Amino acid sequence: MQLRIPGPTPCPPDVLQSLSKQMINHRGKEFHELIQKVTGQLKNVFQTKNDVLILASVGTGCMEAAIVNFLSPGDKVLSVTNGVFGNRFADIAQQFGADVQRLSFEWGKPDDPDTVRKALKANPAIKAVLITQNESSTGVCNDVKALASVAKEYNKLVLVDAVSGLGAIDLKTDAWNCDVVVTASQKAWMIPPGIAMISISPEAWIANNSAKMPRYYFDLKRVKKSLEINETPFTPAITNFYGLDVALNMMLKEGIENIFSRHTRIGKLTRQGVKEMGLSLFADESSASNTVTAIYPPEGINPDTLRRVLREKYQVILSGGQQDLSGKIFRIGHLGWVNDDDIKVTLKALKEALSESGFNK
Amino acid sequence: MQLRIPGPTPCPPDVLQSLSKQMINHRGKEFHELIQKVTGQLKNVFQTKNDVLILASVGTGCMEAAIVNFLSPGDKVLSVTNGVFGNRFADIAQQFGADVQRLSFEWGKPDDPDTVRKALKANPAIKAVLITQNESSTGVCNDVKALASVAKEYNKLVLVDAVSGLGAIDLKTDAWNCDVVVTASQKAWMIPPGIAMISISPEAWIANNSAKMPRYYFDLKRVKKSLEINETPFTPAITNFYGLDVALNMMLKEGIENIFSRHTRIGKLTRQGVKEMGLSLFADESSASNTVTAIYPPEGINPDTLRRVLREKYQVILSGGQQDLSGKIFRIGHLGWVNDDDIKVTLKALKEALSESGFNK
Repeated sequence: MQLRIPGPTPCPPDVLQSLSKQMINHRGKEFHELIQKVTGQLKNVFQTKNDVLILASVGTGCMEAAIVNFLSPGDKVLSVTNGVFGNRFADIAQQFGADVQRLSFEWGKPDDPDTVRKALKANPAIKAVLITQNESSTGVCNDVKALASVAKEYNKLVLVDAVSGLGAIDLKTDAWNCDVVVTASQKAWMIPPGIAMISISPEAWIANNSAKMPRYYFDLKRVKKSLEINETPFTPAITNFYGLDVALNMMLKEGIENIFSRHTRIGKLTRQGVKEMGLSLFADESSASNTVTAIYPPEGINPDTLRRVLREKYQVILSGGQQDLSGKIFRIGHLGWVNDDDIKVTLKALKEALSESGFNK
Repeated sequence: MQLRIPGPTPCPPDVLQSLSKQMINHRGKEFHELIQKVTGQLKNVFQTKNDVLILASVGTGCMEAAIVNFLSPGDKVLSVTNGVFGNRFADIAQQFGADVQRLSFEWGKPDDPDTVRKALKANPAIKAVLITQNESSTGVCNDVKALASVAKEYNKLVLVDAVSGLGAIDLKTDAWNCDVVVTASQKAWMIPPGIAMISISPEAWIANNSAKMPRYYFDLKRVKKSLEINETPFTPAITNFYGLDVALNMMLKEGIENIFSRHTRIGKLTRQGVKEMGLSLFADESSASNTVTAIYPPEGINPDTLRRVLREKYQVILSGGQQDLSGKIFRIGHLGWVNDDDIKVTLKALKEALSESGFNK
């Protein structure tokens, strides 16, 4: 089977095996050592010296944590968005009472730093800027470095949703001045959904001191305090920690630069392959994501029917479009535990399924 | 090893094995069938026809869901509490702006329904009553049936933290008029921490319509809407679903009445055993929990030192006291995958460790 969706991604055999380990006391030595080890390793992949905390939730919960710990109701926030997940980040902020200004870019196009600069110049009261690194609904990778740099020209807090990018696409948390960065286990990390990871800069901790949005489960100060004794305030998702330990060892052995190169190569391979079949990419190629590719089906072919054929006949599982893009595109996920052969198998199946559906270039 | 803490509880071998299954598409048929099946089975154990929803969080997150979906800031809430977890439920409500009146009972004693009645009579503006079924910090099981019945005399919403009791100790959600009931995977359910389950009555859904506390990740209306198409709004913790499926099959095969009897027998066995050693129970025996027993160490013996001896020499892992009870008691968890022999092994080790520590009855 080829599970080629933008998460959950397939888990390597060693990760799967580790998930069968028996429970341990989450207040005992073995867990203390485990959380200490993986937290240190996570910092390498986050490219940060900041605090990195691990939550028992999936990515959206961690996005909520990135909002409610650093903002107060009424705070002005600039949401830079070009897809479903950018909108979700804005929705969360709005739900908790932020005064959200949405700077929406066309889906499939990257967020434009110059437009962000104008918006920040025009609205000095803005406190934080919400950025999506990898918009997996459209297959666009935004330029976090440039966007964060613009936000820092105006001393804004930079909150980054890197759920489907971090660990696969370069993101230099410290060098690029990202105050808060969020990711989740079932993406580049090659482990099952259930934990999410977040980094917090000293500047973000200062904002935390006066942030008044209500929080309890996602109260990061509490999580940080527990981490000082190598624990979590509430029961940790132990099985995911077992998997994370194995996956991080694999990742650091491969080396993060090599991981980024592999994803760059595989992203290119995927896009070239679908273009050679005569299909069109949804996203501008200049900002194409190296973890997910969104594709228009040929005229007259329903992407969901095509996906059904791929699934039933070829055991290749792809994703459909979300929200406004439902029934209009399909998406190939290529992140985490993926190599060139996986993509070749996927593309071959796609070509055959298209041909059976009556499409010939 | 005997992991005898009140959660995470040991997982049966078949559960552990199921956790190694490869990821699947959470928007595909296989997951649709899985969530539909386990949701139906959960209703049997919850003894309810109400909605039962599954969240990607541990118990505390689900307690937050039980608060923020049914209340508005300023709502008057009666928190009935006699321990750490009762206080936590109240803290969450307070954190999100409820006007919380704490009705605190002595730790180790059960909550008293008559006192609750007086409080409700004196405060007609109270909207909801927070109840803890099984106070695992002290080993007290409260009388949910009587407490809920009193709350219903005054037409209050009944929100029940059953995290460490449900599935081991009888709780008749519908027959006892419990509007919202919360539990978590790593307790009686014999699977790793990472998912939590919540039931919601029609009356609670009506309250939900006007409940204004902010919520996004824990927005249960969204979860209910996704469940209508056998999905979750955000990525589900798939591995825990695999485990839940296996565990629920085991539980329903044993039969919930038999599970309750087993826990009653094992609770009694534990209490008798420690009393025969000359130790005192922390909780009143009339309201002793059948999932966790809190015990005073003998005079002059530090419970944490005793636990270290048990862990290092006997591979028996017990819990310490929490908050005010830290260093004063120790606790034996006996819920989920536990039989008489496990308790005998645990008691034998305890007796020997006590004797080595210089204690002779």
